Amino acid sequence: MGALRLPFLTSLSAAVPRRFPLRRPLYIANFSAQSSAVEKEVIASGESSPKPKLQQDKDRVITPRSQDFNAWYLDIIANAELADYGPVRGTMVIRPYGYAIWEAIQDYLNVKFKETGHSNMYFPQFIPYSFIEKEASHVEGFSPELAVVTIGGGKELEEKLVVRPTSETIVNHMFTQWIHSYRDLPLMINQWANVTRWEMRTKPFVRTLEFLWQEGHTAHATPEEAEKEALQMIDIYTKFAYEQAAIPVIVGRKSKVETFAGASKTYTIEAMMGDRKALQAGTSHNLGQNFSRAFGTQFMDENGQRQHVWQTSWAISTRFVGGIIMTHGDDNGLMLPPKLAPVQVIVVPIWKKENEKEAVFKAASSVKETLSSAGIKVKIDDSEQRTPGWKFNFWEMKGVPLRIEIGPRDVSSGSVVISRRDIPGKQGKAFGISMDSSTLLAYVKGKLDEVQSSLLERAISFRDSHIVDVSSYNELKEAIAQGKWARGPWSASDEEELKVKEETGATIRCFPLDQPACAKKCLMTGNSADEVAIFAKSY
Amino acid sequence: MGALRLPFLTSLSAAVPRRFPLRRPLYIANFSAQSSAVEKEVIASGESSPKPKLQQDKDRVITPRSQDFNAWYLDIIANAELADYGPVRGTMVIRPYGYAIWEAIQDYLNVKFKETGHSNMYFPQFIPYSFIEKEASHVEGFSPELAVVTIGGGKELEEKLVVRPTSETIVNHMFTQWIHSYRDLPLMINQWANVTRWEMRTKPFVRTLEFLWQEGHTAHATPEEAEKEALQMIDIYTKFAYEQAAIPVIVGRKSKVETFAGASKTYTIEAMMGDRKALQAGTSHNLGQNFSRAFGTQFMDENGQRQHVWQTSWAISTRFVGGIIMTHGDDNGLMLPPKLAPVQVIVVPIWKKENEKEAVFKAASSVKETLSSAGIKVKIDDSEQRTPGWKFNFWEMKGVPLRIEIGPRDVSSGSVVISRRDIPGKQGKAFGISMDSSTLLAYVKGKLDEVQSSLLERAISFRDSHIVDVSSYNELKEAIAQGKWARGPWSASDEEELKVKEETGATIRCFPLDQPACAKKCLMTGNSADEVAIFAKSY
Repeated sequence: MGALRLPFLTSLSAAVPRRFPLRRPLYIANFSAQSSAVEKEVIASGESSPKPKLQQDKDRVITPRSQDFNAWYLDIIANAELADYGPVRGTMVIRPYGYAIWEAIQDYLNVKFKETGHSNMYFPQFIPYSFIEKEASHVEGFSPELAVVTIGGGKELEEKLVVRPTSETIVNHMFTQWIHSYRDLPLMINQWANVTRWEMRTKPFVRTLEFLWQEGHTAHATPEEAEKEALQMIDIYTKFAYEQAAIPVIVGRKSKVETFAGASKTYTIEAMMGDRKALQAGTSHNLGQNFSRAFGTQFMDENGQRQHVWQTSWAISTRFVGGIIMTHGDDNGLMLPPKLAPVQVIVVPIWKKENEKEAVFKAASSVKETLSSAGIKVKIDDSEQRTPGWKFNFWEMKGVPLRIEIGPRDVSSGSVVISRRDIPGKQGKAFGISMDSSTLLAYVKGKLDEVQSSLLERAISFRDSHIVDVSSYNELKEAIAQGKWARGPWSASDEEELKVKEETGATIRCFPLDQPACAKKCLMTGNSADEVAIFAKSY
Repeated sequence: MGALRLPFLTSLSAAVPRRFPLRRPLYIANFSAQSSAVEKEVIASGESSPKPKLQQDKDRVITPRSQDFNAWYLDIIANAELADYGPVRGTMVIRPYGYAIWEAIQDYLNVKFKETGHSNMYFPQFIPYSFIEKEASHVEGFSPELAVVTIGGGKELEEKLVVRPTSETIVNHMFTQWIHSYRDLPLMINQWANVTRWEMRTKPFVRTLEFLWQEGHTAHATPEEAEKEALQMIDIYTKFAYEQAAIPVIVGRKSKVETFAGASKTYTIEAMMGDRKALQAGTSHNLGQNFSRAFGTQFMDENGQRQHVWQTSWAISTRFVGGIIMTHGDDNGLMLPPKLAPVQVIVVPIWKKENEKEAVFKAASSVKETLSSAGIKVKIDDSEQRTPGWKFNFWEMKGVPLRIEIGPRDVSSGSVVISRRDIPGKQGKAFGISMDSSTLLAYVKGKLDEVQSSLLERAISFRDSHIVDVSSYNELKEAIAQGKWARGPWSASDEEELKVKEETGATIRCFPLDQPACAKKCLMTGNSADEVAIFAKSY
């Protein structure tokens, strides 16, 4: 599966990530220092509060995005407590808040996989070394990055075991035992699992030694069915990216050079990150008969002839969480699309005098009850150790889409203040929203939808303003040098594709499925070209 | 985590399991041979059908349970397509039907864990070898069964990596970074993961080299809180076993000899299998300060004093699926408790003439719609290649709690025939149940509840009729020789406990939490004893 494949040459041009350590979450300590000032301000103003921005803070702990994108990314991961480094180089501990985003991804995709006829199951992670060697391009692609178990129960093993980097080989080994006749087809399964790839340059979520993913594997009686399945699954990923993650991916086919080791065709969704680098966010492979020939996965067709099955595999991984961070985050921290946010609404009760507390807490609870009974993920931050200002910044940094503030005046007037994460300052703030449950619920639902759409729209316009149509190699080089994506007709050779990689650091991300209709000439050779390709630097 | 710990001496007395291969699922082939006879019978009788039992079949492929319990168990796993052997010795492929049972277990427990304040997260599976060595009894318990990665990315590693057998060590390593003050406590997390233990004697689900589980890990400020948590979690497991799996486990505390490597106290749920051997089905450990001292996991208490945290860990694994098979299955195959069954109701349309088909199919669809819209897991077996008789046997073998038969006469009368999996023959069959949706739904829901209760009641009476109260070692030996569980007062030494193990093959399964009130004398020494213990042979 290629979700996390690192195109080799690209990695040479990638910025060297800071590896150790993720900064300690200093956030809390820093905000404690300034909290009393903020508190006073909030209290003075009743319930609305001009809040100090992170970037106005001298002791800022989140590096501004524009200053150092990679440092910003690592700061967010540390401060929002999404992940931490594991003790082994390149491994990652996914912390509860980061894992909850992954669970939201799982919840959505798992339903879609089942609706389209796939069953979950589980294959062992230890694969005999000899299996990996059976499919020629597969072993070439994966052998440099294998983790190998050589000792079991205190003894040297006779055959070394590979810790799965992907499961096509063991899946085919089992498929040969389950598939006999055309009646056993299609066989459509999926597994949620951990996989291991001994990557040299790692970055939390984006590329780690061990990561979590789902890998679908299917076997079909005809090449048409396999192709249809590969397309169906990339379509599910595309819809997921747009509708749930608010990431406007470009769906396309990989060039031969970039195709998964062992596949006939690889479909991909490519996302533009905030630094305009591309992230391969999911892939779906038409494996043809490559693995079935290597493993002898055959079936008796309706005419009594033995045939090799036609296969697909497809995957999305925890890398996607990195994609969400790098698509939507800003200088204030994470910004989560409401549909995948572990907390969609944070309620912050605000009080000054002890005798105001009870009424404010009661109103906060009732608001929480209203929203959570409608299935909205809502949390009250009722900590007494932190000021409202501190809480505003903290939950903004955690990317929560909506904040509800309730102070004593709000209780008197039966209303609340609601702020959007995606629109800073007063512009994103609405005063006097009635606490009446049906009014409040309708308002919150509507605002969550608005935030969801607005994140997608913003990402679309960001993407579109950074893709340049090019018709010559010089134009391509210029676009890439400006940090943009270049889109242009391409029918040149693999060698010329590699030359682009070497000279510009950009690779063909994909031939988009959505192609312009007009006649085209290859930007490199001037020969006629059937398709435009998109070139970009990538993770 | 001790869910799958193999008490060492017991294993010597365990029957040697057949290891390779699980018999090919011959079931289909066999039933094809006899299907035409069955078909005729079914057709002749309209819609109800006296069906041939597996045990009346000369070519029986499920070994009778009474003849060879282990062969019966393996036959069920193969024929019901629950699992298959992986290519590496001792590994298991969990097939969709088996995995769906595991998913039902996950769905229930995951909600309970979250309700009780635990968050899911994920730790890397590679643990530096040095970590395992830090807690003395932990390394002693686990070092014989480790899988070790020595090669990564083509190079010999400087420090060997253990593939996690359980995660207390890496969890503590991370906890030291996250826990600073009493405000960070309690820290309560869980992960769903694969674990690896290099077991010598393996058996699908019950003991495999790699298995799936959840492992909870918590850290607390006081020993009382840790103890309360350990008890809370074993209570969740107990309720799950009774209410969902219909397995009347006995909950108790492990003897010192049987306590988890690294724990201060281990609570366990022990289930009696159909062969009257005990299965340790889940464990919850009070770890005291054993790991926190080894790893230096400390916090600043409210008085500014540094203290080591008090911890727990707890686990249930895919072993539980083996427990369900061995508790409820019979000679006809699997029998699943409705609350965990992937298919709760199978609908079998029956028709003779082509012109009857449409009406029968339509009625079957409408029945399915009625049930599934109420959340019942229902499936229609509308295959045209199999006879109704074949289907009856097949779904019975798969353990589906209820079967609905619909033939042309049923369509005319607007009623269906409903059969219970747990009551064989006519006794378990109800004719003329109205197809009217509210009547049918109420009937089916009621019957599913009845099957659920009846499975539990049956298992309770089986369990209670095979536990013998003993007051001397001779009585204990006699009970164990008869294949029963012996319950008697115990206050003797570890050496005497090991003697019982050597001489009888039985171990102390637990000191039940539910203890008789009267004064007791140790069955071995005659000294006064505070508690009764349960002795049994086990998996």
